[in-house]
Amino acid sequence: MLDLLLTHATVATMADGAPFGLVPDGAVGIEGGKIAWIGPAAQAPPAAAVRDLAGKVVTPGLVDPHTHIVYGEEGLVDFEILSQGGQRWDLEPKGGGVGQLVQRTRRLSEEAIYAASHARMSRLIANGVTTVESKSGAGLDRDTELRLMRISRALGRDLPVTVVSTFLGAHGLAPEYAGRRDDYVDFLADDVLPEAVREGLVDQVDGFCDEVGFSHAQMDRLFARAASFGLGVKLHADQYTDFGAGAVVARHRGLSADHLEFASEATVRAMAEAGTVATLLAGAHYSLHETWKPPVDLFRALGVPMALATNSNPVSSPTVSPASQMNLACFLFRLTPEEALRGFTVNGARALGLGASAGLIATGRAADLAVWDTDDPRGIAYPIGGAPCLAVLKDGAVVHEAPAPRLARA
Amino acid sequence: MLDLLLTHATVATMADGAPFGLVPDGAVGIEGGKIAWIGPAAQAPPAAAVRDLAGKVVTPGLVDPHTHIVYGEEGLVDFEILSQGGQRWDLEPKGGGVGQLVQRTRRLSEEAIYAASHARMSRLIANGVTTVESKSGAGLDRDTELRLMRISRALGRDLPVTVVSTFLGAHGLAPEYAGRRDDYVDFLADDVLPEAVREGLVDQVDGFCDEVGFSHAQMDRLFARAASFGLGVKLHADQYTDFGAGAVVARHRGLSADHLEFASEATVRAMAEAGTVATLLAGAHYSLHETWKPPVDLFRALGVPMALATNSNPVSSPTVSPASQMNLACFLFRLTPEEALRGFTVNGARALGLGASAGLIATGRAADLAVWDTDDPRGIAYPIGGAPCLAVLKDGAVVHEAPAPRLARA
Repeated sequence: MLDLLLTHATVATMADGAPFGLVPDGAVGIEGGKIAWIGPAAQAPPAAAVRDLAGKVVTPGLVDPHTHIVYGEEGLVDFEILSQGGQRWDLEPKGGGVGQLVQRTRRLSEEAIYAASHARMSRLIANGVTTVESKSGAGLDRDTELRLMRISRALGRDLPVTVVSTFLGAHGLAPEYAGRRDDYVDFLADDVLPEAVREGLVDQVDGFCDEVGFSHAQMDRLFARAASFGLGVKLHADQYTDFGAGAVVARHRGLSADHLEFASEATVRAMAEAGTVATLLAGAHYSLHETWKPPVDLFRALGVPMALATNSNPVSSPTVSPASQMNLACFLFRLTPEEALRGFTVNGARALGLGASAGLIATGRAADLAVWDTDDPRGIAYPIGGAPCLAVLKDGAVVHEAPAPRLARA
Repeated sequence: MLDLLLTHATVATMADGAPFGLVPDGAVGIEGGKIAWIGPAAQAPPAAAVRDLAGKVVTPGLVDPHTHIVYGEEGLVDFEILSQGGQRWDLEPKGGGVGQLVQRTRRLSEEAIYAASHARMSRLIANGVTTVESKSGAGLDRDTELRLMRISRALGRDLPVTVVSTFLGAHGLAPEYAGRRDDYVDFLADDVLPEAVREGLVDQVDGFCDEVGFSHAQMDRLFARAASFGLGVKLHADQYTDFGAGAVVARHRGLSADHLEFASEATVRAMAEAGTVATLLAGAHYSLHETWKPPVDLFRALGVPMALATNSNPVSSPTVSPASQMNLACFLFRLTPEEALRGFTVNGARALGLGASAGLIATGRAADLAVWDTDDPRGIAYPIGGAPCLAVLKDGAVVHEAPAPRLARA
C-alpha cells in the first residue's frame, strides 16, 4: 500500500506531451520515499495517509542549478550602489563587489558562515527547492575555498536538500596572485582542487571565463584537471561580452554555460551539438541593468535546453525565491511560464547532470515535490515576487509546510 | 505596566532625524493596543510579556495606499500576453485587460469574490500590511460597484487590517455607456456614489483621468460631488501621457496622484503647493514595459512626498508583496531603500490622509507593527522578491507569525 497519497491536485509532472505534463484533478502516490503512482484522482489506489490538495498545483521539487549561497554577510552596499543605477565597475571602489565579499568571507569563522548559509538555504527549501548547486568562490585561497565547500557538504547533510558542490576557485583572481593569473590557475588545479577531491568536497568545477576573468587556455587547463578527477564542468559565460566562453564549455562536453547574454550563434551551435544546457540568470540581468538579452529564440530553434537559477549571491542576485526569478525570466527574457518552470525543474536537473527523468514527477523517482498556492501552473511565475510555496516534500517526507495564513483577529 | 515589550529590536520608527528614524538595539512597549514606550532596550520598563527580537527589524505596519485587491479570478491571460512583450492595447483583443476583468467580475457571486479577496488580503497582511486602500472599479455598474465596496468593508471587519474603501466607478467606461461618457459620469455622481455614501461603503473617490479615460471636466464633476459628501479624492494620473491629471487632483486639494510617469514640472509644482502625495506604482511600470520614469528628482526637489503601493490587481500588478515592490521601486525608479520604506509607511499614510504620525512608530499611535527577517532596515527592499515578514501586530495583538523555517529532516 502507498505510504502517502497527494490527491485532488493539479499535477504538473513536466513530462513531455501536454503543457506542463499536466494531470488535472490528479494524484501522486508515494511509497518508500519514491513516487509510486501518478494518475487521475478518481483512480488512485488506497494509501496509509491521504492529503487533499483541493486543486493546488504540485510540481517536482525545484532544482536550482546555480547559486553562490554559502557566504556570511549580506551586500547592502552593493544594493545601494546598483539600485541607484550604479554599474558593476562602481562596486569595488565603493567597498562592494566580489573583491570585498572575498575579504569579508576570509575573515569570518566557519561557524558564522555556516549559520548564515543555513538560514538562507532553509528559506530556499521553504520556497520549493529540493536540489541545489552551491559554489565556492568567495574565498580564493586554499583554506577558505575548502571551508566553503565543507559548508556546502554540511548543508546537504543537515538539511533536507540535495546539494551539488561546485569548486569555483576561478571566480576571480586572488589578490595574492595579482599579475600572475597563470600561476593562480596552476594553484587551483594542482593544489586546491586535488585537496577538495581528496576530502570528497566537490562534484563539479566552474570558472569565470571573460575578458576580465580567465582565458580559454586557462579554463582548458583547469577543466583538463577536473576531467582527470571525473568531475563535470561549467562556466560563467558570455555575460558581459561575446567571449566564446559557451563554446569552451561545449568543447569540454560541459554541463552548462551560464548567463550567456552575449553568446554568439556559433557558441549556441556548439552548445547544441555538445548537449550543453543554457542556464539563464535573470536576477543578475535585472540588478546589473543589462539590456542585451540571451539569445532565447536561438536556444529554442537549436534545441538547447534552458535552465533557470536564483544565482543566489549577495552582490548581483540576493534572492532565495525561485518563483520571483521565474517571473523575471518571463518579463525580461520572454520565457513562457512553462519554460520558466521547466528551467527550475527538468532543465535545472539537466544542467546538473542528474540523469534522465530527474526534475520530473515520474514513477520510480525520489518523491521530491513542491505544492503551490495556485490552481494553475502558470500561476507560480505570475505574481511579481512569485507565488508562495505551501509545502515541500523530500524523499516522500513533508519537510516544510507554510499553509495560507490564518490570521488572528486583532 | 506594559502589556507587551518587543525588545532587542532594530527599531525603524521612520521619524525624522536619523536614517529610518532608527533606534538600534531598541524596544517598543505596548499598552492598551497603543505604543506606550520607545527607546533603548537597556532602559525599557517592565512588561507583562516580553519578546526578544534578537536584532530583527521592526517597522510601522505597512500602509498600502493603492490596491484593486477585491476581484475574483486571476489574470493569467494578461500575464501570458504582457510577459511575452505584449502591450496594454494587446490585452482586450486577446481576452484580457480591464474590460474582461469587468465582465468576469459581474458574473461572479459576492461570496466567490469575497473568498478570493479574503485569501489575497490575508497574504497582504502576512506580508506586513496593517492598513490598505481597496478600490472598486471592476464592476462599472451600480450593483457590482456597490458589491465590491461592501466586500472592502467586510474585509476590514473580518480581518485584522484597516481598510480605506475607494469608489473607482470612473476606472473605465461601462460598455452600456459606449459613446456616452458624460452620461456615465452623471450616473456615477448622481446614482452610485450617493448610494455608496448612504450605505456607508466609501471613504474616497478615484478616477482614471487620461486621453483614453475621463476628461478634466468629467473628473471635476465627480470630484465636486465627492466634496459635497466630504470625501477625499485622488486620481490615476499621467501614466501614459502628460495629461495634466496630477494638476486636476491638486486643484481639488486631493490626497494623491498615482502613477505619474509622464507628470510635467507644472503638475509637480501644483501637487507640491496643494500637498498632494505622489503615489508611485512600480509593478505596473514593470509589467507594462514602461521606460519613462516618474520625475523622482523633481518630487524630491519640490518636497512632494512619495508613497509606494502594491497596486495589487490581476492585470498589471498581480502581487501582494510590498517588499517586492520596494525592491522594484529602488531599481526602476532609483528610490533609496529608505525612501522605499517611507513610501509604504509614513508617506503611504499621508496618501490616505490618515493624519499626523500615522505610518510611524510613535507613542500614542495604534500599535500596528511589522517584524522582518533582516537586522538592517535596508534589508527589507534588498532581496529580489522582497524580505520575508516574520510577524505582524495590529492594535498591539500579534495577528500573524511566520518564523524563519525550521525544516524537518527528510
